[in-house]
Amino acid sequence: MSLLTHIRDPRDLDGLDSDQLTQLAGEIRAFLIDAVARTGGHLGPNLGVVELTIALHRVYDSPNDRILFDTGHQTYVHKLLTGRQDFRRLRARGGLSGYPSRAESPHDVIENSHASTVLGWADGLAAANRLLGRDDSVVAVIGDGALTGGMAWEALNNIAAAKDRPLVIVVNDNAWSYAPTTGGLADHLATLRVSDGYERFLARGRDLLERAPVVGRPLYETLHGAKKGLKDVVAPQGLFEDLGLKYTGPIDGHDVAAVETALRRAKRFGGPVIVHCVTEKGCGYTPAEAAADRFHGIGPIDPDSGLPLAAGGADWTSVFGEEMLRLGREREDIVAVTASMQDSVGLTAFAEAFPDRVHDVGIAEQHGAVLAAGLATAGLHPVFAVYATFLNRAFDQVLMDVALHRCGVTFALDRAGITGTDGASHHGMWDLSLFQVVPGLRIAAPRDADQVRAQLREAVRVEDAPTVVRYSKGAVGPAVAAVGRIGGMDVLRRPAAAGPADVLLVSVGALAPMCLEIADLLDAQGVSSTVVDPRWVKPVDEEMVPLAARHRVVVTVEDNVRTGGVGAAVAQALRDAEVDVPLRDFGIPERFLPHASRGELMAEIGLTAPDIARRVTALVSRLGGAERTFA
Amino acid sequence: MSLLTHIRDPRDLDGLDSDQLTQLAGEIRAFLIDAVARTGGHLGPNLGVVELTIALHRVYDSPNDRILFDTGHQTYVHKLLTGRQDFRRLRARGGLSGYPSRAESPHDVIENSHASTVLGWADGLAAANRLLGRDDSVVAVIGDGALTGGMAWEALNNIAAAKDRPLVIVVNDNAWSYAPTTGGLADHLATLRVSDGYERFLARGRDLLERAPVVGRPLYETLHGAKKGLKDVVAPQGLFEDLGLKYTGPIDGHDVAAVETALRRAKRFGGPVIVHCVTEKGCGYTPAEAAADRFHGIGPIDPDSGLPLAAGGADWTSVFGEEMLRLGREREDIVAVTASMQDSVGLTAFAEAFPDRVHDVGIAEQHGAVLAAGLATAGLHPVFAVYATFLNRAFDQVLMDVALHRCGVTFALDRAGITGTDGASHHGMWDLSLFQVVPGLRIAAPRDADQVRAQLREAVRVEDAPTVVRYSKGAVGPAVAAVGRIGGMDVLRRPAAAGPADVLLVSVGALAPMCLEIADLLDAQGVSSTVVDPRWVKPVDEEMVPLAARHRVVVTVEDNVRTGGVGAAVAQALRDAEVDVPLRDFGIPERFLPHASRGELMAEIGLTAPDIARRVTALVSRLGGAERTFA
Repeated sequence: MSLLTHIRDPRDLDGLDSDQLTQLAGEIRAFLIDAVARTGGHLGPNLGVVELTIALHRVYDSPNDRILFDTGHQTYVHKLLTGRQDFRRLRARGGLSGYPSRAESPHDVIENSHASTVLGWADGLAAANRLLGRDDSVVAVIGDGALTGGMAWEALNNIAAAKDRPLVIVVNDNAWSYAPTTGGLADHLATLRVSDGYERFLARGRDLLERAPVVGRPLYETLHGAKKGLKDVVAPQGLFEDLGLKYTGPIDGHDVAAVETALRRAKRFGGPVIVHCVTEKGCGYTPAEAAADRFHGIGPIDPDSGLPLAAGGADWTSVFGEEMLRLGREREDIVAVTASMQDSVGLTAFAEAFPDRVHDVGIAEQHGAVLAAGLATAGLHPVFAVYATFLNRAFDQVLMDVALHRCGVTFALDRAGITGTDGASHHGMWDLSLFQVVPGLRIAAPRDADQVRAQLREAVRVEDAPTVVRYSKGAVGPAVAAVGRIGGMDVLRRPAAAGPADVLLVSVGALAPMCLEIADLLDAQGVSSTVVDPRWVKPVDEEMVPLAARHRVVVTVEDNVRTGGVGAAVAQALRDAEVDVPLRDFGIPERFLPHASRGELMAEIGLTAPDIARRVTALVSRLGGAERTFA
Repeated sequence: MSLLTHIRDPRDLDGLDSDQLTQLAGEIRAFLIDAVARTGGHLGPNLGVVELTIALHRVYDSPNDRILFDTGHQTYVHKLLTGRQDFRRLRARGGLSGYPSRAESPHDVIENSHASTVLGWADGLAAANRLLGRDDSVVAVIGDGALTGGMAWEALNNIAAAKDRPLVIVVNDNAWSYAPTTGGLADHLATLRVSDGYERFLARGRDLLERAPVVGRPLYETLHGAKKGLKDVVAPQGLFEDLGLKYTGPIDGHDVAAVETALRRAKRFGGPVIVHCVTEKGCGYTPAEAAADRFHGIGPIDPDSGLPLAAGGADWTSVFGEEMLRLGREREDIVAVTASMQDSVGLTAFAEAFPDRVHDVGIAEQHGAVLAAGLATAGLHPVFAVYATFLNRAFDQVLMDVALHRCGVTFALDRAGITGTDGASHHGMWDLSLFQVVPGLRIAAPRDADQVRAQLREAVRVEDAPTVVRYSKGAVGPAVAAVGRIGGMDVLRRPAAAGPADVLLVSVGALAPMCLEIADLLDAQGVSSTVVDPRWVKPVDEEMVPLAARHRVVVTVEDNVRTGGVGAAVAQALRDAEVDVPLRDFGIPERFLPHASRGELMAEIGLTAPDIARRVTALVSRLGGAERTFA
């Protein structure tokens, strides 16, 4: 008999006994392996939090109490326990989000998938509860990896200071970020994890001291006089306690009863408490236990073997990774930086070849950028490979540390543009706007694998300014040949007839094939066009304006929010030269995009060849035979 | 006889004996009080680091060794010791920068004045030294306040993990950020500060344990068995030690010999070491010791009394502060957030009236933004008052936490635009571009005190989206009256004659008087104009496009980088409506601006009424009588 199907609401967990809870955990694991094998998704993280999530929902009364999850990809169990058991369209259009979603459920609070934010949210919600006189609870679940992010520290520093404000922080410690967690904090957590025997030791120590009234007592008293208590002083949990946070742990995160006991005690405490739960990523699924990194997020797999169903072709990431390896062999000054995603961004081969030349900084993009500024100032050339959406967090450091100091640092932005199923906070749709304002910075948008290789090489030759190389997610398409060069720009297609053409199509990065298709569609309507790939989209190529002036309309197409993007930059260059050729900029509208496939999203926002061709044809037809007036 | 004037290079310090060092410190203090009283500048922080800086330059061989300062406003002593003693034009055009400057000296490394970056730089430089086989030293000086910033944590986590890489971190602990340092870390440092007697206590404890071989010995052994050593376990320095960083302190930061001894020992250690120096902000100058906040950064003062020479009129900050106080009285749900700058952003009166409703998060803009998202989700309306340049650091949080979750949070951006003497990293010239891309966010740019009040009120009424109210630094000018309203926009001036005008002048914020002056200058050339203040510059007002279509040219004027700013947004709105009226956008060019007065910088970049009027007149004249073709 299935227990899971009878759980419609967290309160349905209340009546279950210990055996039933064990059965339920087993059912949830089987469900997740089966469901995620079909759709793809975040498997390992969710298998690790089955018991923890059950315990949370038994101790806390969501949604009155707020159960907050950091990063959000480990909320599948939470979804199953809060009335969402149809996983057939997980992460697909119209199906369940792979992250919490307020639109889905009142049990969900934080939709942002960027790490380390949960403690800030918890601090805000707990502070509001206090101000508004509410006694609802707030509990935040954060991974050990996310604790390496600076925001976690900022929040802990504030939470610790509000000593009388109830707030429980569950550290879900599986020793992993996206990759194994690194740094001093990871070492400290490791120390805590092996301190199982410390309660026993502690009892023995106090006993020894108390049985020696003359000698030991003063020490015991002195320690207590420090207002920290013996436990706080001799136990190795110093870090959190020193900040003023009560610590309890380590707890076996796969023991529902143990977690419940710890949570109930922490909830009663009346101040900020850390509950340190040790879990195993992928727990209960042999393939995932054996390779936690590979099962963090997966495509569809065979559930028995855990092997991917689809054979992967060359993707943007691996093209970058292979070229980095080659560059590493050629130039000793090239070093790599990653924010806990060495494998995901394609740096594994480089790291194996040059272990001393890779810096995994943890989930700490700000530090990655500033570290790179330091490395560059000393004469090295760092390449910081990072998902486009995550570098947003280091905007200030790119501007004020890297660019202001004219450091030769290359940012390789993986998964730029519409990425699809991970939803609003994973699309890499802001970088071309954000980094557009950074003085001296140059941005390359390679259109194919050859260009990734070529432009990465061009980027690492720049020693006095930051460079950005941004490329898409997933399979890289076939090479798109250039038929000519104008300035630094590749001409991808010339008008059929000689003489002035109607439209200059400016193609950004991976949208080159779409732009060629637009040109074909325009041709069919009798509208002639030139298609150009600027390759370096910032600064605007010097030949862009004269080229534009030889056309009646300029059309830009980019996989980035339109606001302040490449189209806006070209338009400004035209204005500055007083070349008032009409320009139309196509890109992503200024709104958050939901989860759906890349193709579905592109269609929804009209970023397709037929849509754009239709609009451009209409514009050209409206302009009729009128000559440009303002050029 | 003056010693200071004979110090041309740090090595000139080598031969000085203890008495001479004391004399030198006194001379430096007298010099600073005299010099900064004349020019204004950061007085308190520099008076606090006189002995510390002398000790640093005696122990380290700059510039081969790298002495790095966080935030940079405490480098006046460093400048005096590295050949820069002409302070007459401190922070003025062509004079010494108020921060480190690579152009000034090879002894300067970090020019960025945003806090908490130094440890990242130090990590990068130390890592590069290791990779390149150099044995030069790296020493980083960071204030206790800057340790509350998340970047400091990210860096410490990485530095601690590189246990064999020499790096000395001097914590300059004066218990102040811009305001008193807050949070769990501050409490921890306070504990450390009062632990003077702990070495004595420690010796006594070990002695007690050792004199009790049967009873105490096992405890002592057990503690040692934990590989931490007795000292590490019973001493209260747990936080840094638990991360894996050696700690030494507290050291009296005003005792050159003590600091030198600690630094030499730390330098020899061969791994990362924290040297905890306790200093007094404003040390040696009675008015500054008594009011450390007021003497953090000052305008010209009377050196004897410490009182300001110029009487301050109403400034933007105080107008905001007064209105916040009124709003706080009217609405209980309004709460304030500050990142360690309560007084500087005008929140002191609000905090005195509603102490429970102000959150000082430390130098932690990221946390401020996310905390605000949490507060808003619980039904409160937070107003986060922050310098425009500092909110750059929380771009990701504004986008992904506040905006994605449609939180009603108001960001009051003080010191927006060109701010003058603090130089490149203090100008608030990016906000109108950065926050332009955030879906749903609205931006108000009030032109005068009345509008600050009115628009702040409008902002806090928005409950489902973030709002930004950005205003300038310094004295607020007289009210600029509206002569009409079109949509949500104020018309500031209509063309003298009826019928279509030549130019639509779009004025942003405090530039309204300049735009009115431009209109006068245009009039004198026979060019008619309408001057409009959109008040809310994002989203572009619905009436903007039809209004623009009734003019021959649109001109936008903003105190922000041109790239992706208000002009770019208006231009895009026109394109989207297929209204191809030529537009010219005036603003700050895309480069870093040096320190100089606001007026000097505006003149340098051509952001003056005569410059703009001349260029607009030329454009209109070039267009001649041609009708608009594309509208």
